[in-house]
Amino acid sequence: MELLDRTKLTIPPFERDNFLEMSNPVSCSYSKVDPGTARAIRKLNDGLRNGLALPVKDEQVAVNTPRGNPLSELKGPTNPMVTALLTDMYQITMAYAYWRADKHLDEAVFDLFHRNNPFGGEYTIFAGLEECIKFAANFRFKDYEVDYVRSIMPPSCEEGFFNYLRGIDCSNVNIHAIAEGSIVFPRVPMMRVEGPLLVVQLLETTLLTLVNYASLVATNAARHRQVAGNSKILLEFGLRRAQGPDGGISASKYCYLGGFDATSNLDAGRRFGIPVRGTHSHAFISSFVSSDEITQRSLAYANKIDSCDDFVGLIQYWLSKIQEADFFQGKFSETNHSELAAFTSYALAFPTEFVSLVDTYDVMRSGVPNFCAVALALQQLGYKPKGIRLDSGDLSYLSIEARKFFVAIEKQFAMPGFGKLSITASNDINEDTLDALNKQGHEINAFGIGTHLVTCYKQPALGCVYKLVEVNGQPRIKLSEDLSKVTIPGKKQCYRLYGKEGFPMVDLMVGENEPPPKVQERILCRHPFLESKRAYVVPQKVEALYKCYWAGKSGLQQEPLPSLESSRHHCQHQLATMRPDHIRSLYPTPYKVSVSGKLYDYIHFLWLNEAPIGELH
Amino acid sequence: MELLDRTKLTIPPFERDNFLEMSNPVSCSYSKVDPGTARAIRKLNDGLRNGLALPVKDEQVAVNTPRGNPLSELKGPTNPMVTALLTDMYQITMAYAYWRADKHLDEAVFDLFHRNNPFGGEYTIFAGLEECIKFAANFRFKDYEVDYVRSIMPPSCEEGFFNYLRGIDCSNVNIHAIAEGSIVFPRVPMMRVEGPLLVVQLLETTLLTLVNYASLVATNAARHRQVAGNSKILLEFGLRRAQGPDGGISASKYCYLGGFDATSNLDAGRRFGIPVRGTHSHAFISSFVSSDEITQRSLAYANKIDSCDDFVGLIQYWLSKIQEADFFQGKFSETNHSELAAFTSYALAFPTEFVSLVDTYDVMRSGVPNFCAVALALQQLGYKPKGIRLDSGDLSYLSIEARKFFVAIEKQFAMPGFGKLSITASNDINEDTLDALNKQGHEINAFGIGTHLVTCYKQPALGCVYKLVEVNGQPRIKLSEDLSKVTIPGKKQCYRLYGKEGFPMVDLMVGENEPPPKVQERILCRHPFLESKRAYVVPQKVEALYKCYWAGKSGLQQEPLPSLESSRHHCQHQLATMRPDHIRSLYPTPYKVSVSGKLYDYIHFLWLNEAPIGELH
Repeated sequence: MELLDRTKLTIPPFERDNFLEMSNPVSCSYSKVDPGTARAIRKLNDGLRNGLALPVKDEQVAVNTPRGNPLSELKGPTNPMVTALLTDMYQITMAYAYWRADKHLDEAVFDLFHRNNPFGGEYTIFAGLEECIKFAANFRFKDYEVDYVRSIMPPSCEEGFFNYLRGIDCSNVNIHAIAEGSIVFPRVPMMRVEGPLLVVQLLETTLLTLVNYASLVATNAARHRQVAGNSKILLEFGLRRAQGPDGGISASKYCYLGGFDATSNLDAGRRFGIPVRGTHSHAFISSFVSSDEITQRSLAYANKIDSCDDFVGLIQYWLSKIQEADFFQGKFSETNHSELAAFTSYALAFPTEFVSLVDTYDVMRSGVPNFCAVALALQQLGYKPKGIRLDSGDLSYLSIEARKFFVAIEKQFAMPGFGKLSITASNDINEDTLDALNKQGHEINAFGIGTHLVTCYKQPALGCVYKLVEVNGQPRIKLSEDLSKVTIPGKKQCYRLYGKEGFPMVDLMVGENEPPPKVQERILCRHPFLESKRAYVVPQKVEALYKCYWAGKSGLQQEPLPSLESSRHHCQHQLATMRPDHIRSLYPTPYKVSVSGKLYDYIHFLWLNEAPIGELH
Repeated sequence: MELLDRTKLTIPPFERDNFLEMSNPVSCSYSKVDPGTARAIRKLNDGLRNGLALPVKDEQVAVNTPRGNPLSELKGPTNPMVTALLTDMYQITMAYAYWRADKHLDEAVFDLFHRNNPFGGEYTIFAGLEECIKFAANFRFKDYEVDYVRSIMPPSCEEGFFNYLRGIDCSNVNIHAIAEGSIVFPRVPMMRVEGPLLVVQLLETTLLTLVNYASLVATNAARHRQVAGNSKILLEFGLRRAQGPDGGISASKYCYLGGFDATSNLDAGRRFGIPVRGTHSHAFISSFVSSDEITQRSLAYANKIDSCDDFVGLIQYWLSKIQEADFFQGKFSETNHSELAAFTSYALAFPTEFVSLVDTYDVMRSGVPNFCAVALALQQLGYKPKGIRLDSGDLSYLSIEARKFFVAIEKQFAMPGFGKLSITASNDINEDTLDALNKQGHEINAFGIGTHLVTCYKQPALGCVYKLVEVNGQPRIKLSEDLSKVTIPGKKQCYRLYGKEGFPMVDLMVGENEPPPKVQERILCRHPFLESKRAYVVPQKVEALYKCYWAGKSGLQQEPLPSLESSRHHCQHQLATMRPDHIRSLYPTPYKVSVSGKLYDYIHFLWLNEAPIGELH
């Protein structure tokens, strides 16, 4: 069996227009020009195009490049540990080999994409872009990092390389990407990174680290939101179970992006302006013994004019009233004293924000009656209590029982609004339990979700990859027995085509230089690999998916980074405009990802040329 | 049904000795003294004991406490994002409520422990202690953090609290813990944190964040090591799939602790001195077209005296020799040119460290022959090539075929050592695939493991909890329908008892003031909850599990933090001394965790007093 040499490929005529002729002063195509010359021309063109002196492998120049001045005003990534050195060793060994082979300035294009949607679903929320761009904008090796690199490389490595490393940055890199918070589908690159081979290769690991978990957890959050429905409040409570502190902070950020309302994580609140929520734990309840401990027993009325001298006594009064009322006869007897003391103390500390964790002893026999006694006392003083939190047991049953209790109190004591007090549930909740609760019926207003949400328990990793698709204008294809691992070669443009009903119908990849699809014009969309899967589409709306978020010094217009709030809205808007069957939890319909007819032909031409023909004996 | 009030409990005489009488100048027990007085006495005692002025709730004093001077020379945690504010909102609301209720200086004891071992196993590796101690040593709210806290708290909160927050640190906190890298078992606290209620409550979330993932991933690494065996090299390759950048750095650290040999993560290498490894990716291979690209074709001999002018030609020579040799006839024909060019470039860059990724086109028809040609050329120049990496396909079959090829080359060309070249495998490997490979047979020397290892795919969260077990010398118990959720009350000492064969037999918890078990002395060990499970044990060795790793200003002797290397050795040593059936992957035998007879009686006395008696009608 003979493996074909790519240098011998003859390019069929229909391809030239789209893939090989560049809009450069000097045109080159590798069927005519030898690779070395082609590369030289490319570099010349780049220099001309960018109006820059040619990049040179000259230690002096590299060393003299101003240090510590990021290319833009962008601050670095949230986590200061995200540096150029946060990468795999093999990026450095490759960088050295590229440099030694004088390939470091080859113009490379990498696509960052995922092959499969997580959680058995048919969509992914793209997140992490802002951090990627901040990383790229500040990408630069510090001296001590280069010193470390030198210390672990073989002594035979040339010193010029380390000096070169000191000088590199992303000034010659461009990053095109789909907007953060967008719905994305397998094989359609979320990001396209172009620039000198050595530099864009070095970005690989860090970009993947910043996108993989961000997109995974944002998708997880969006799925929880879909199941819970828009009327529920979703609180992310995962910090303690997250995979490392940064896992916690990232989770808070991207769960908010994916549709959560608030977090328990204070530092995430401070960093990103996410609303924070929290009340107390079982330890708080059990740290109290009895109301005798409470020394400051007075509480001002909400009007701040009057004062109740014995708030503790007032609570006792209300507790007796509840116990004596016909409706509650036999429902409970004596409630737990330490719990009541804890609730009382919490109410004295937070009269305007009174919430109780009611399951330390017994929800319906102690927690809820104790809560109601304190809440009634507060309401008498003009405050509006908030509600309860359930952290164990049958959440459906307990929430319904608690609601009945509240409604009965409202009726019994003519306390308007009491029946509508908030019920928060927070015991090992995930997508499936939310779904089960919906089916069983419940009276829960808010869900606090931790472990399953932030660790993405159902599938804790997203497999985004970063694949070389073009070098010096020459397409690269990676083959595999597994169709989902075959890459779509070349630099591409991606479009989302919308149908008559306003829903996206199909994502379409075309060669960089193909004309964009037009509204109302019929276009053939083909499955990238399966010959028989194809359709003519007449789009009612065409959305170009890429914008340039990092232009380096190319002069391209650079899209400003949207705020987290704005990406969150974008995500919610995107989900709202999807055809519901694509995003449902159970047996969702796959969304179509396609290529143009020309790109299809090109892929298959390259594929057949690269794939060895097996020999069976 | 009546809930018993804990203030009314009468403490049975046998308990006084062990739980309530403190070794303080003034003795108190809550059966005799009211809680307020008891607390006052406690604070007085603490002040006397510590030789310190009493802590006071006085704004002026708090504000005047020197700022920014950590209590010790310990640097902060690895991740600068690990600050006092990296916590849940409810810790702050509780702190305020404690402060308002004047309970903030109550002496509290919290236990940090897990309830279930991960991955279906019967052990857990305790990790994260060093980071916890560094966190505690530097625990202090910065002004902007307090300002943020104030901004999200209700306006009614008293300013004095925020000033108080500014002044707190861990000077009055003690942390006892089991050594990092130790094998630990459910319910036996890994850490015991003592100090003022407000401060030790505030530590909860961060300590859990630092221990949960660290212990989880260290355990995962140890399990992979157990299955792979000690003769294999294990490489952690997980950064790109980790849950956030810090997930990656933590994974590298704790996988090393758990028994891995190296990481791909450069920054982890720099920070922790972990060996780093890496070669090249498929992108490197496919960025080359042919050997014509290689401009620098000469390579010095290993002796640095001679030089080979045409190393590229030498490789061609060896490739022909292999093709012509009888043994290889028909095994392959022409190999892939771009792959050969990439290998050649890599060898020119790293003649002393030559490794090839051989699966880009076809392992046995292209990758291995190409590798051998380059390796033979290197060997001819006096270098010692390293080996190959397989990243796809049937790793058992391919490694065996590659080994045969190497052995044949050694024989054919009289190249000593060639048959023993290293084979590294790195395709989605986990504990189960390692086990399957062992069963099928393979010739792999090293495994690169990423996703499954660092995200702990099999179980991505460990559920360590932090439970209040004592306040002001009074034990606290938390009840639950689920036995594993019942806490063991009171401040305890923990021992590991070893048997005649040198294996640990049982972990024993006793009350803080009970005498330690003695070598050769029979002691009753009881299951904490199940009456009939008990055994007399005559230990041959007794190991006290706790040391004080953070003494604050108590004057207790503070254990220095061991190095990562030393914790790693400790972990390996601990695993080596376990009875093998406890740590095997399949159906391991549970290790026994027990309490003393006295502690058993005490738990059950408290339990019955706290648990409501149900009423069925």
